[in-house]
Amino acid sequence: MQSFQPAKNILMGPGPSNVAERVLNASARPTIGHLDPTFIGLMDEIKVLMRYAFRSENRLTFPVSAPGSAGMEMCIVNLVEPGDKVIVCINGVFGGRQKENVERAGGVAVVVEDDWGRAIDVEKVRAALKENPDAKVLSFVHAETSTGARSDAKEICALAKEFGVLTIADTVTSLGGIPLMVDEWGIDAVYSGSQKCLSCPPGLSPVTFNGRAIETIKKRKTKVQSWFLDLSLVIDYWEGDGARSYHHTVPVNAMYAMHEALLILREEGLEQAWVRHQENHLLLRAGLEGLGFQFVVPEAERLPQLNSVYLPGSIDDEGGLRRRLLDRHQLEVGGGLGAFAEKIWRIGLMGHTATKDNVEYCLNAIASEID
Amino acid sequence: MQSFQPAKNILMGPGPSNVAERVLNASARPTIGHLDPTFIGLMDEIKVLMRYAFRSENRLTFPVSAPGSAGMEMCIVNLVEPGDKVIVCINGVFGGRQKENVERAGGVAVVVEDDWGRAIDVEKVRAALKENPDAKVLSFVHAETSTGARSDAKEICALAKEFGVLTIADTVTSLGGIPLMVDEWGIDAVYSGSQKCLSCPPGLSPVTFNGRAIETIKKRKTKVQSWFLDLSLVIDYWEGDGARSYHHTVPVNAMYAMHEALLILREEGLEQAWVRHQENHLLLRAGLEGLGFQFVVPEAERLPQLNSVYLPGSIDDEGGLRRRLLDRHQLEVGGGLGAFAEKIWRIGLMGHTATKDNVEYCLNAIASEID
Repeated sequence: MQSFQPAKNILMGPGPSNVAERVLNASARPTIGHLDPTFIGLMDEIKVLMRYAFRSENRLTFPVSAPGSAGMEMCIVNLVEPGDKVIVCINGVFGGRQKENVERAGGVAVVVEDDWGRAIDVEKVRAALKENPDAKVLSFVHAETSTGARSDAKEICALAKEFGVLTIADTVTSLGGIPLMVDEWGIDAVYSGSQKCLSCPPGLSPVTFNGRAIETIKKRKTKVQSWFLDLSLVIDYWEGDGARSYHHTVPVNAMYAMHEALLILREEGLEQAWVRHQENHLLLRAGLEGLGFQFVVPEAERLPQLNSVYLPGSIDDEGGLRRRLLDRHQLEVGGGLGAFAEKIWRIGLMGHTATKDNVEYCLNAIASEID
Repeated sequence: MQSFQPAKNILMGPGPSNVAERVLNASARPTIGHLDPTFIGLMDEIKVLMRYAFRSENRLTFPVSAPGSAGMEMCIVNLVEPGDKVIVCINGVFGGRQKENVERAGGVAVVVEDDWGRAIDVEKVRAALKENPDAKVLSFVHAETSTGARSDAKEICALAKEFGVLTIADTVTSLGGIPLMVDEWGIDAVYSGSQKCLSCPPGLSPVTFNGRAIETIKKRKTKVQSWFLDLSLVIDYWEGDGARSYHHTVPVNAMYAMHEALLILREEGLEQAWVRHQENHLLLRAGLEGLGFQFVVPEAERLPQLNSVYLPGSIDDEGGLRRRLLDRHQLEVGGGLGAFAEKIWRIGLMGHTATKDNVEYCLNAIASEID
């Protein structure tokens, strides 16, 4: 066995996306202590930058020391107590995972279901809220990574507020790629991932909680079932003026990377990043349609950063073709997940990967292999 | 805000330890997909190298995608079902944390308590096992990071086996620093941390489970309360021949670092690493005693990699002195935790940090500040 030398692939799957040299270099700076005053200063900067990315003034905004799945679990196990009713919107793998988490937290899930590849139907959400006046929480996925569909987070949250229900949003794939206005839309608890449109290495989950969410957590009658994800404990490390109490040892070097990636986002400007994702999506769309691919998701509900497509009928070996793209072209594109396994491709244009050069490279590589 | 430029500190606290350039450089290599066949190959190598470090042939040996606290929680929530009785040995902060986790998993904790700074008394363990024939699990901390005490893992596990009780061991600070023989001692479930004697950046928790542990998990009547930490799901990603199913996105670059750190350990040799920790501990001990420091833990129960000491009576400003060591000498030493807060120092000699040069540097720095 020898030191690992990964290829320099172009990552156009559903994440991770390509990580900028600046971010990789930042992550390789000397490790310092997680209670070192300069590290506490870094944490404070990360919170400020992350609020910018989330478009939120929420004080409690930080990266969970684990991947997006743990961020999802943090939101759910802190807001849901045994017996609580939760309306869960499912239109793909990750809504299903929310339901699984709700039930493991002892919650009662009421499912609003929609077709894979479509947005959540807001009228179904309204009906579920009407039928379940005792619901405490509504959870949904803003950008379904398994299908490439974008749901109307603004409308869903407005409805939930009308019915006095708390909202949990999965923004793993949306943060940094499409408009996400946590405060303006009034989302109460939000989790995301580091490795999508923020273009950090995988391993951290940005989260943000507003005052309503924190009040709900403070009023819990039972302890949060997870010690590692218990916000009432984690908060003493990430918040507080001056001294912080030790909870767990955070991934110090991963935080360097997150800080650098957020700096890059701020330098470009969040709105400009949204525009860049959209422009490159349009380029990719034109090229893919020219090659005979068809989009899974109707245009109005599409995520620019995650293009899910049916392959041209002439291709009967999707796995083999993906493997050839990887082996011969150092190009990773994603396959389908769950009900879409072996049926679709997911072509990501996330964060640092979303450039015109990459779009052209991808289209040329596919064209050369299917010719 | 600008790119973060951490100081190049000498990390002689309770972890993280200093990370070798080789490991930092490995972590900064290009990110690739978590389902990329070459990444699956890397995972397989990590498992082989980690078995070497644990002295185990356990097939299910891998790093959890989160810090040691999550590794602890993984062991407990998978092995403990609601109503299960667990004997928890507490002689410091981390035994207490095990109890907290057991109770949050719905288990009934029976506590065997010992003084902070002492090993767990094996006779007390025997008595607890006798008094609790219905106990299912016994959990203990091999190397108490809060006190620097080493407990007799071999004896404790032999007793547990005699009484037919499963064992969970916290080896966060012991792995790579002192003898730990998972198979020979028959420990059933073990968790550790990346940032101590393995000298990786913090963020991963090596774990290993033997056949008895896996059988117990397979016979569970209830679902594991944590989706993220559910071994029956995680196993499909880390095990299986050939294709692996997606569970969560693992911290790809952190895995590069873990692989490199384990390679370094194998190059030096595990036994040689144990000897190096012991030799440098003896050097440090002589110097500290010469400066008037007194060891908290009796000699036979001391961890060479974590030296907890009472300060000389002449020092009445332990926090100020630690801060001066950090600011003027770029030297981090740890303060006390829990009952030992502001009462002791914890001076780490872990992994890459455990060198003669660092011991001398540390002693000179302290001497120059207390003169």
